[in-house]
This record gives sequence, C-alpha cells and structure tokens, in this order.
Amino acid sequence: MIFIDLKFQEWQWQYQISTTFFVFVILPTLLWIYAKYITSSPNKYNKLEEPIKLVVPIPDEAKPHWKGKRLYPPNLTIRVPNEPNKIQSYCPATGQYLGTFSATSKEEMNQQIINAKKAQNSWKNSNFSLRRQVLKTLSRYILDNQQDIARIACRDSGKTKLDASMGEIMVTLEKLNWIIAHGERILRPSQRPGPSNLLIGMMKNGEVRYEPLGVVAALVSWNYPFHNLMGPIIAALFTGNAIIIKCSEQVIWSSKWFIDLVRVVLRSLKIDEDLVQLCCCYPEDADYFSSHPGLSHITFIGSKPVAHKVVESAAKELTPCVVELGGKDSLIVLDDIKDIKALSSVIMRGTFQSAGQNCIGIERVICLPKSYEKLVEIFSERVNQLRLGSDIDQLDEIDMGAMISDNRFKQLEALVEDAVSKGARLIHGGKPYQHPNYPQGHYFEPTLLVDVDSSMRIFQEEVFGPVLTMIKATDVDDAINLANGTEYGLGNSIFGSSFKQVNDIVNRLDSGNVAINDFATFYVAQLPFGGVKKSGYGKFGGEEGLLGLCVAKSVVMDKPLMRWFGVATSIPPPIDYPIKDDKKAWGFVSSLNTAGYDSRVWEVVKAFKKLAKGGA
Amino acid sequence: MIFIDLKFQEWQWQYQISTTFFVFVILPTLLWIYAKYITSSPNKYNKLEEPIKLVVPIPDEAKPHWKGKRLYPPNLTIRVPNEPNKIQSYCPATGQYLGTFSATSKEEMNQQIINAKKAQNSWKNSNFSLRRQVLKTLSRYILDNQQDIARIACRDSGKTKLDASMGEIMVTLEKLNWIIAHGERILRPSQRPGPSNLLIGMMKNGEVRYEPLGVVAALVSWNYPFHNLMGPIIAALFTGNAIIIKCSEQVIWSSKWFIDLVRVVLRSLKIDEDLVQLCCCYPEDADYFSSHPGLSHITFIGSKPVAHKVVESAAKELTPCVVELGGKDSLIVLDDIKDIKALSSVIMRGTFQSAGQNCIGIERVICLPKSYEKLVEIFSERVNQLRLGSDIDQLDEIDMGAMISDNRFKQLEALVEDAVSKGARLIHGGKPYQHPNYPQGHYFEPTLLVDVDSSMRIFQEEVFGPVLTMIKATDVDDAINLANGTEYGLGNSIFGSSFKQVNDIVNRLDSGNVAINDFATFYVAQLPFGGVKKSGYGKFGGEEGLLGLCVAKSVVMDKPLMRWFGVATSIPPPIDYPIKDDKKAWGFVSSLNTAGYDSRVWEVVKAFKKLAKGGA
Repeated sequence: MIFIDLKFQEWQWQYQISTTFFVFVILPTLLWIYAKYITSSPNKYNKLEEPIKLVVPIPDEAKPHWKGKRLYPPNLTIRVPNEPNKIQSYCPATGQYLGTFSATSKEEMNQQIINAKKAQNSWKNSNFSLRRQVLKTLSRYILDNQQDIARIACRDSGKTKLDASMGEIMVTLEKLNWIIAHGERILRPSQRPGPSNLLIGMMKNGEVRYEPLGVVAALVSWNYPFHNLMGPIIAALFTGNAIIIKCSEQVIWSSKWFIDLVRVVLRSLKIDEDLVQLCCCYPEDADYFSSHPGLSHITFIGSKPVAHKVVESAAKELTPCVVELGGKDSLIVLDDIKDIKALSSVIMRGTFQSAGQNCIGIERVICLPKSYEKLVEIFSERVNQLRLGSDIDQLDEIDMGAMISDNRFKQLEALVEDAVSKGARLIHGGKPYQHPNYPQGHYFEPTLLVDVDSSMRIFQEEVFGPVLTMIKATDVDDAINLANGTEYGLGNSIFGSSFKQVNDIVNRLDSGNVAINDFATFYVAQLPFGGVKKSGYGKFGGEEGLLGLCVAKSVVMDKPLMRWFGVATSIPPPIDYPIKDDKKAWGFVSSLNTAGYDSRVWEVVKAFKKLAKGGA
Repeated sequence: MIFIDLKFQEWQWQYQISTTFFVFVILPTLLWIYAKYITSSPNKYNKLEEPIKLVVPIPDEAKPHWKGKRLYPPNLTIRVPNEPNKIQSYCPATGQYLGTFSATSKEEMNQQIINAKKAQNSWKNSNFSLRRQVLKTLSRYILDNQQDIARIACRDSGKTKLDASMGEIMVTLEKLNWIIAHGERILRPSQRPGPSNLLIGMMKNGEVRYEPLGVVAALVSWNYPFHNLMGPIIAALFTGNAIIIKCSEQVIWSSKWFIDLVRVVLRSLKIDEDLVQLCCCYPEDADYFSSHPGLSHITFIGSKPVAHKVVESAAKELTPCVVELGGKDSLIVLDDIKDIKALSSVIMRGTFQSAGQNCIGIERVICLPKSYEKLVEIFSERVNQLRLGSDIDQLDEIDMGAMISDNRFKQLEALVEDAVSKGARLIHGGKPYQHPNYPQGHYFEPTLLVDVDSSMRIFQEEVFGPVLTMIKATDVDDAINLANGTEYGLGNSIFGSSFKQVNDIVNRLDSGNVAINDFATFYVAQLPFGGVKKSGYGKFGGEEGLLGLCVAKSVVMDKPLMRWFGVATSIPPPIDYPIKDDKKAWGFVSSLNTAGYDSRVWEVVKAFKKLAKGGA
C-alpha cells in the first residue's frame, strides 16, 4: 500500500492506491509507455535510433606518405586540353594529380532529378526517428574518422588539418547535433493566434504545417569542400527532401567521396541513396541545371558575379533562391580591451584560417587609436612567423596552407599595390610564395597591410586571401561608419569591455551576423546565417534554414468546440446571391466590420443590434 | 494594518506590512507604474496612442449621383494616343472618365527613393506605440468611412460595394488590428537555443534581432486597389521601413487617393509623409524601378509572365523578392456534405466575388459523384439569377460588377469554347455582356461550365473571371490528383463532414494555403500567405510577412554568468599561431570535437583527459 499525503492550507487529501486503481490506471499506463517508447519503431527514448557502424574505404591519396605524381605547368589547370567535358583534379598544395572526371551532361542532370524525385516520394513520409538515425550515423562516423575526413578535405583544397578540424568538421558536427536535438520541435506545426476579428476569431484556429519541398539543389563553393556540401545535405534530408549538390569543379575529387559517404549511410539504413546526388560541370553549362524545372529550391554559396547568373537563371522557372555571397567582414576593436595579446591570436586565426578563403573571414580590422598601435606592433612580429606548406605531407609544423588556385594572385597583388600607392604600409608579404618543396603549390605570403583607409580598393573589394588589413578609426562613430562603408553586409565581430557599449554598436551595424567579443560564433551557434546588401539574401542554418526547405502550409479550421457543436460557416442570408436588398446587405457587412474591429464599445453594441436586424 | 496569512503544508508565513514597508516598497512601485504607464510617452496602457480624427475630402467621382462624362470607343483605353507618358483613368463599369495622370519618370523614381530613405532614417527609430497609433488612426478612419472607401474602390475597379466590403475593407481591417494586437511581440528579439556543443553551449547565448530593411517596394495588382496597396504599406510602416507602391496603371485614380489618405495619417501624427509614396508607369518602364539599387525588398503581386520580368530585373541588384502570383484554386467537395444548399452559397461567393478577379477565387469545383449531381442542379438554377451592373450608380440590386478591362474577353471565350469542344457542357453564360445602361462597361456573363476534365485548357489555365467550373472526381484520391494537377499551388478549400478525412486530404495537397470547411479564411486569419509551384514563393501576411521586411540579425554573446566571471573566449595555446606541435594541436582540436559532440560517455571522458594534457 502506498499513501500520498498532501496538506495544503486547511485541506487534506488522501489517495489510497488500491488494487483496482493499479489494475485499471497504473498498469495500462505502464503498458502504454512500454509499447510506445521501448518496443515499437525507433525513437529517441529507446536505443533503436542509435547510429550504426560504417566501413568506408579511404582513398590512397588521403593516406599518410602517399606519393602521387606531380603535374607540371602548363597542365596545372582543371581544364583538360581538347576535352571540354573533362575535369582534372589535383592537390593545390603539392600539384599532385588526383584524377580526371567527366562533367555531368544535361541528360544525366535530367535523370538525376527524376531519380531524386522518386526517392523523395517515399522519404517524405519517413519519421523523425529514422531521419535522426541518419544524422546520428553520419555524426558518429565523422567523430570516429576525423583524421581521414580532414586529410581528404586538405588534399583537395590545400588547407591545414587544423583549418579542416574547425572549419569543416566542427561546424558539420554542430549542424548535425543541433538538428538532432532541436529539429523535430522546429518542424512541428506552428499554432498561430488566428484572426483578430471578434466574431471570426471565436470560430477559427490557424496553424502552419511544414512539409518537404521535393528535390532541392545546393550550388556550393570550394572553400569548405566537406562542410559546404554536408550542411545543405543534412538540412535537406532532415526536412524530407532529396538534394542534388552541384559542387565546384575545383573540388570534385573530394566532393565525390563525401557524397559517396552519405550514400553509404543511406544504403546501410535501407534508404534509397538517390536522395543525395552530385552534379559537377563548368560554369558555361550550369545554367541548364539552375533553370531546371525539377528543382523546388536553390541554395547558392559563392561569389556575386555568379550569383547574378544563378538568380536570373532560376527566374525562368520561378525557383526560390537563398543567396550566400561574400563579405568584407570587419572586426572592430575598442580602446578598452583588456587582453590585447589574446585578441591578436583571435584575429590571426580569423584572418589566416584556410589562407583567408573564408566567407566570414576577417577582411578588415578596424581599431580605435590605442588598440591600433598595440595591434600593429604585435602583428608586425607575429605575421611573418607563419609557415606555409602541405600540412598532410610534411613532418614539421605548418601554420597556413595553399590557396585553391593561382588564378587570383595577380588580383591580390594589384589590391596590395593600389593600397600602397595610396599610403598604406606593407609590413609583410603581398606576393605569391614559391615553396621550395612544392614549386607547383599555390601559395601566397601571409600579408600584413596597415594604415588602410576607405579610399583604397582593398577596403571595398573582397580579398578572400591571407591579407591582414589594419584600419584606424578616430572614434566609435567612425568605426561604425567604416564597418558599414562597403556594399557587403555579412558578418562582424566587436571587441570591447563594456557590454552595453558593444551591444549598442551591434544594433548600428548593417550586417546579417554579429559576434560579440568573439569571432564567427554566430555561424557555429546555428543561428540563421545570411547577409544583407550585396552579401545576398535568405538564410540557411538554424530554424530559418530548416523551415526554408519546407512548404509552409497555412491551414484554417473551425475550433474544436465549434466542430463539437456542429457550427459551420455559411453565407448569411442578407449577403447571399441573389441579393434581396442592397441597403440591408451593406448594413449587414459594414456592421460585421464594426462589430469585429471597432474598439469603441458603443459602436460594437450598435453594430450587433444592426446585425440582429439583418442589416436594416 | 493588513495581514496576509498563508499556510502551506506545515509552515505559516506572516507578512506585516508596516509603514516602513509601504514607504520603501509599495509607494515606489506605484510611482513607477504611474510614471511608466500613465504619464510618459504613449503606450498601450494609457490612452495616448489612441487614434486621432482625420478629415479627408472625398472625390466627387465617388459620391452618390455623380454624373461624369462617358468615354466612347476607341478612347476606352488607359493609353492616351500620342502621349506615351499619360495614363487615362476611367470607370470600367460605366465608361466614365476619371482623369489623366502622368507616368512617374525615372528622375521622379530616383527622387522618391531618396526622399523615402531620408524619411525612413528617423522612422526606423520610432517606438511601437507611435507605429500602433498610425495603424489605429487608419483603422478608425476606415471603420468610420467604409461607405466612401468602398465607393472609391468600386468606381475604379467596377466591383460591387459588397465585394469591396469583404475583399477590400474587412481584410485590411483584419491586417491592421492583427498587427496592432500581435506585431510588437513578433518583432521582439528571438532567443535561440545556442550551440549544441557541450563546451561552447555553456558559454554562449544566441538571439535574432529584427531591424528595418530601409526602403521597400510593392508592385501590386489592380484587382483589390485598396487592400493590395494597404497591406504592404501597413506591414512596411509597422516594421520601420519606408515603402514605394507601384500601382497598376489600371487603378491609378483610386491608388492616388488611398496613398494620399495614408500620407494624411502620417502628416497628422507629425511623421514625414515621404515614408509612403506612389509610383505608376507602363510595363515597359517598370524595369528601371524594379532594378533600382535603392530598394531593399520587392513584393510582387501579379501575373506569372510579369513575375519573370520583375525577378530577372531584381537579380541585377540582388534584391530579394516575394512573388505572389495566381492560382488554379480548387474547392473539393466530399460526398458526406450535410447542407449542400449552404455550400452552394459559399461556392457562388467564392467564384463570382469581384467578377472572379480574385487570386484566391475558386477556379475549379472538384466534387465526388453524389455532391456533383446535386451541385450542378443547384447552380443551374442559381447562376443565371445573378444581375450585373454598376452597383454604386444603380438603385436596384446588383450581384456582380464589371471586369477591369475587356482585353481578356476573347481569351475567356476561347477557354470556354475549347472546353465545350472537348465535351464540357455550357449551362449559362460564356460570352461578354452588353449592359443596356452601360454599353461601355466591361461585363462578362456569369458562366456555368460543367463536366470539365483535365484535358481541357480551362482546367489548367487561370481564368480570373466569372466562370464556375465543375469537375467530377471518381473518388477521394482522384479528387486530390485533380486538385494537384496544375502548375499552380496557391489555395484550396475542402468540404466534408469527417474532420479526420478532410485533414488527411489537407496534408496531401500541393498548396500554400488550405481552408477546411470554409473559403479563403487562411487569408483573413493573417497566416503566412503564399503559394508553391508556379504560384510564386515567399510569404506575406502574418508573422512571416512582418519578419520578411526585416533584417534578421544573428547575434552571439557570452552568457551573462560568463561575463560576470570575466570568462572570455581565447585561442587555446596548442592551436595558437605559430603552432608549436602539430600532433598536439591535432590531438587538442579533435578532442574538442569529441568532448563537444560524442554521445558516448567514455569517449567524452577520454577527450577531456586529452584536453587537460594539451592534446598530447
């Protein structure tokens, strides 16, 4: 026998749980819990949606001590002479050949989209447990194989393993685990307040339901071959969509492996692997893809000139686009910084990670005068300490990797020269670097450019390279104006000791994302990510990213109580066709408006009186 | 003396409110409430944000018994011969001349956007009380002048006052009052869960702040000259933006008056009236407007062919667009309907309101067999009872007004002929109607077309006219396939007695909006409104509509507790540039990932151990 004894104020309650109670209440409840959460289909309470173990062969090219043949100029290009449909892949840090791939033809694109739609037709009805199991399996594989994944990304992009760990693996794990934790809640139907009309509001409930779009596409840039590709896949799969990734021709070798990894996950869970497919072609053929009528949504991550083409192309089929372009992100340093040495390390990481090829990399450091002097001094000592090379092939330490290609080196040099000619001081770097071990590698010297101002091209144009640009602001207002003074508006960081002051600055920045006393954490935090002005529009990441891949279906229904009483909407007689009396009809509808919306009690009373008399 | 005596379980609490307590606690609280809610700036608790009274002269053309001169063909066009920049306005129900207007020139567009930006620079900092006062003043004016507003809309569009009351006035009042009630809550910063990483998650808070975009534009269609124009203005003003309305050249006369009304509201509240401006030009000059770099957002309400042009044009400046096009909305009737007579009235209203010129008008009635027979019988009797004419000029009863123009009459006739040639039965109408009193009016006969099937053009192409189209479905699956069988996906209605069955059908419809046992209530309910497939993309209305006119700024900051303890993010020594030990650096970052994301306790423990040893 169990007694629960509660005393509240003067009352005493006693419940005696008898055998009867146990048999008719407790036992059924326990059985129900057992059936629902323990035995039946996988869910997050039992262990049936746990990750499964995968075996995926690692390519030789990504293994330690791989000795691949080196390409020598003029072959060092992804274009194969006389074979316009072939894409040649090589490691930008060493010049080693990785393979030759065929570009996806128009017929293949059509077939991919047909197959994807077929796979999606059953996937759209999958439950969240299975979707979570897909993500958990992927997450577990990534955790258990961080080294291999990093090496594959490094081999194709030239970055360091440290860059890959933070910029590729950590952000992908965050996306996976954030959606595992919060995704289902976000995609639940959203109850809305319903009409504010006094009369209709009593009758109707409104809600928004989120349903998969169908086949979506993501056109992704080469700077994060793993994460840029995985991010859209994770979001698309969890929302019940199929996805075609159009990867950059610069990183087709690794993209293929990463897509195959996802397909192994799907296959292992007995899901149609055509849900996820890879398309790759040269820019001149991309129009066919982005104007394909089989696509319901396009996420574009890339540069502004290409974005214009993609958006125009998508306009032909009225396909909605999310457009994520570059930025000219500033990091603002106020004068009350306590630990400027620690801050300098953050700025170094934010500038030179992935050799500056980071859409939210720090493009401009805007400092108030005192901080400016100190930071210039520190950087003058630190920037030339950075060592370049191929991290996965070298035994000694490497700080910065190669760039994806040398096709922008002339442009970077020109930006530096223009700045110097207008009064900037070049402390370190400013030109390509010929690496003694890897003469075919695309290296650019870590560059420190100080005394930059808004008259220089480098203040306005995205560098997307390893250039630390220092700008002095006279005061806080000047710093804000400088930060806002470009056509971009993607991200910003602000460092200062007074939270209130920093927070006020946040509100005055024209930008889609701001980190306070940190760098780029807005991206890690799965907040909606996207820029303003010429940095694009639309959001991916976070709740907005998931909901953006859904049809938001607005549904209105009678309130349960109304249904219960059998109250149904109908056209009131005074306004039913054919109209019997024009004056009464008007009296009726205008009184309906007054009764529904007027805030003056007397007017509402009069309106109800008129309604009762049929509008007369 | 006051005693509060509480007994809870075994404890007794006694508070004796002494004079001291009163002086130091109660009195300051009361003073604070008084200062905050009663005396200070307007807010929703005191009466200071109450609507103010306006006096706006009503144009003669909208007054009863107005006798305007009639235009005779071939002048019955909005184009003035030999004056390419002039727009001629006339009443489509009577052919009476309303005035000649100059199209907005490119220079004027530039100036409008400059003036709007200037006005928005102070408006963006306005508080919600003032914004609510603007909406309340407008709402009160509309309520007090329903008759005049309806007459102005009717004069320019040819619709009936009843059409205007429901389609123009009621929906605008709903939008105003819904935003007054819910707008401020929606625009508050949204707190987000923060990173799912175990380590970073403990440190960081994330939120999304909503800030005005700047100058936005709405290109709106002529079918609801009041509501289509007011909707975007209301949302733009409440979100702190300025707005330029590009009205249809078909309804410039009334649009001008409606814009002036809003400007009177602004002026009366001492707000810069350039926040709201009107632009009007012929389609061939609209490209300059929609590709203007001064616009931050475009809402387009119109037809598909024009949408392609607008979206392509906006692509030049990467301006985000919300695209609201037409539909081929179906109303599905199941066989278990109880009151089919009442339902027939709903269908009549949904089809013939505004002479069918309604983007969410019922374009197809899809019935199961039993309902089909009954409804065809009822409509055969009811449709030809509808009387046409100019509601605001005639003394006898009018059910349906004129269409905006006769330029689509040939097309409507061709659609009917095509259907009849393929086996449809034309019961009523099907051709233009020559009104005895208004020979220049653009009337089309209320049309009933039955036995329509998917082989006919009228099944696929939007009619946007007074045609009731009946389609028989063999069963529920067939009904759903028929409903989904067009390139559009805007709205649907479903009527049936079993809520469960109806609700399942809702989930299988490819459409942005669904009303259960009602017509178009999804629009009234301020849910997000927008279509799928070729009905467009993006949402206006409701929360999504308001948030869509804002910059969503993602902000990440240290948690207050972290700030309190002075814990700041920094780069951990093993991964600080220059890297001291490559192996340790990798050990450190990979352990960070494991510690942050692995679900296996033992792996996390090992990772923390490795982190404590600096990655070794």
